[in-house]
Amino acid sequence: MSNGPTIDAERVIADLRELHARTGGADGAQRVCWTATWREAQAMLGELLAEIGVEPERDAAGNVWAFIEGEREPALALGSHLDSVPNGGWLDGALGVMAALGVLRAWAGAAERPPRSLTLIDWADEEGARFGRSLFGSSAFSGTLDSAQVHDLRDAEGASIGDVLAENDVSLDRVLDATAGQERLAAYLELHIEQGPVLEAEDIQAAAVGGCAGVERHRFRFSGQASHAGTTPMDRRRDAGLAAAQVALRIEKIGRGHGGVATTGSLAMHPGIPTAVAGEAELLVDLRHPNADELAAMLAEARTAAEEAASERHCEFESDYLWSIEPIPFDAELVAMARDACVEVTGSDRVLTSGALHDAAELARIAPAAMIFTPSIAGISHAKEEDTADSDLIAGIEAFGLLANLVLTI
Amino acid sequence: MSNGPTIDAERVIADLRELHARTGGADGAQRVCWTATWREAQAMLGELLAEIGVEPERDAAGNVWAFIEGEREPALALGSHLDSVPNGGWLDGALGVMAALGVLRAWAGAAERPPRSLTLIDWADEEGARFGRSLFGSSAFSGTLDSAQVHDLRDAEGASIGDVLAENDVSLDRVLDATAGQERLAAYLELHIEQGPVLEAEDIQAAAVGGCAGVERHRFRFSGQASHAGTTPMDRRRDAGLAAAQVALRIEKIGRGHGGVATTGSLAMHPGIPTAVAGEAELLVDLRHPNADELAAMLAEARTAAEEAASERHCEFESDYLWSIEPIPFDAELVAMARDACVEVTGSDRVLTSGALHDAAELARIAPAAMIFTPSIAGISHAKEEDTADSDLIAGIEAFGLLANLVLTI
Repeated sequence: MSNGPTIDAERVIADLRELHARTGGADGAQRVCWTATWREAQAMLGELLAEIGVEPERDAAGNVWAFIEGEREPALALGSHLDSVPNGGWLDGALGVMAALGVLRAWAGAAERPPRSLTLIDWADEEGARFGRSLFGSSAFSGTLDSAQVHDLRDAEGASIGDVLAENDVSLDRVLDATAGQERLAAYLELHIEQGPVLEAEDIQAAAVGGCAGVERHRFRFSGQASHAGTTPMDRRRDAGLAAAQVALRIEKIGRGHGGVATTGSLAMHPGIPTAVAGEAELLVDLRHPNADELAAMLAEARTAAEEAASERHCEFESDYLWSIEPIPFDAELVAMARDACVEVTGSDRVLTSGALHDAAELARIAPAAMIFTPSIAGISHAKEEDTADSDLIAGIEAFGLLANLVLTI
Repeated sequence: MSNGPTIDAERVIADLRELHARTGGADGAQRVCWTATWREAQAMLGELLAEIGVEPERDAAGNVWAFIEGEREPALALGSHLDSVPNGGWLDGALGVMAALGVLRAWAGAAERPPRSLTLIDWADEEGARFGRSLFGSSAFSGTLDSAQVHDLRDAEGASIGDVLAENDVSLDRVLDATAGQERLAAYLELHIEQGPVLEAEDIQAAAVGGCAGVERHRFRFSGQASHAGTTPMDRRRDAGLAAAQVALRIEKIGRGHGGVATTGSLAMHPGIPTAVAGEAELLVDLRHPNADELAAMLAEARTAAEEAASERHCEFESDYLWSIEPIPFDAELVAMARDACVEVTGSDRVLTSGALHDAAELARIAPAAMIFTPSIAGISHAKEEDTADSDLIAGIEAFGLLANLVLTI
């Protein structure tokens, strides 16, 4: 099916283990962006690139590029991110970078040049773990980063994002200069762990990703009347906490009904003491769906449920917009090729939607993009327990290598 | 109906207003126990007692006693507490103390001695606002205070209860010496605001209280699995937060079903972020009922509901005991007399159960006791908005004065 060199998946896994040995430990991965440990991870990537005679470049947003010249331009880009959350997993992001390096290594050792130039990209600060702004490097590259909006961000120790980036030779005022790299890029492919339980449950070793779900994130606020737990009869209460509890359960049903996901990860009651009926309650609502109309319907139904519960309990309802992003479908042709590559390697033609965001979502705004997922054991990620069976890693890496060779020919 | 002197209710209200002017302000009452403002309130009580020629005594727990000698011993005690919560209401506790003073004043100005000795008692630290142990003085008197259990309590500034009590000339090691006063007491009566909305809603000016509801207070803990809000399908979640929300709504039904009250004033989810399904949740449960069997049934049903919800959602359920108190019925004969006094003054024979605890609950352990409630506007208490219509205060004070004279004759 492919006429390019074959990726050495065992070597990719060995690189990942070496990276974890150098930048992680018993508490998990510590490659938090803009820290010395992250720079150590980038230094190791530089060493591995040097082995195959490739000199990396750094763009204005701190993203690292590494080109191998091919027969045509612009380049096929392969990437992900070396940065991790604190106490994170060894595979999240690093798998995609090391697999991209594997593809470069295979071509560097091949007799012929690739039919199209190839570039690895290590995106800076995908996790946003230190300043709360995720997809930093890839959104600077795609042009969606608003540097005015991030200007005042500080880390937990109070250090400003501008100062910390400057220590890393990145000027916050110039990060959008990274958009100049767009013209060097024909398409983008990314291998990532699923970070969810679906592939494991369905016993699938690797799957194409059709796109990233859209997200609506809101704070639902209910106001009733705080009153004494002992002296307020049940039929005279205005219990904002129960209004919120009712809406949390209703939102779960809405998620199920639309085939999306709906999460209420926090319900804060005030005054929050055992002896008082809650007069105020705040529910954090996170709704996701790959289809924009379905997502809008989920939000509308959640609001209606909140209004009804508030009215029933003589409470007031208000909501604060927190964040949203529209569904981002990947390129249909590339997704089909990713599916074909997975069929070839694993026998499965499953196409997933990603509920989490990835750098590929930013890339999809400006170029054809697609992803491949490998399973996550027990669906666990962002934790030291994050892992994937070696056999599944090999399947995912081989499918990714195959996909890259397929896309190089178009 | 009564053959004693009539209480001057207008004067009692004037004393309450004067007390609030001296110890409260725009933010409400500030008579937090063991503070200078509380001592100022006690000083004012001392001045008012001096006006009628009565010298107060202080017992080992900081309770203030003020006797008028009668024809017989032991004494009928009338009391409540001068201490308040921070930013509290002008009537909570103070009403009962000033009404007790009103009865003493009436007898001090009467031609004859009362048929039985009378004593006012101002109980120390009913609210427990500073150290979290409510009914401090009355439970020291009744003997249920375990000084070892309170020994390590500190206030929000870190001051130890022992040091603070010592500043108030109370030795924590000797508070149970207050039990010696039990033999001086034949019965106990207390006037208090309802702190709930029932009397106002039923348009009743004063009502006898049949007893205090029992309380079961527990922390229900649910453990599921924290997981990514975007990547965990709805049917693969172990959402501890939704298990707790479900149980909160179920507990509300249990309260209604038994004619008690059931409150879940706090639901904490962990990690408590919008992007994660809650892996842990804690629900504070407070159940109250005047009947011990009903209360036990409520608790059993709440536990069953929690076990069912946990099992349904593949979560674990555990509960921590926090606090409980059995229902405390007041003395049937005194309650009937309190009802008769209320009928005489207001025309209503309503008998309420108190959902809140009062010093009278501790007193009922060692002597016949009863209470009268006056309405709370909008049911509000423990807040600067706490208030009662003057006409209702007058009715309550007059019913209380009448009740005291009735009980003095038995």
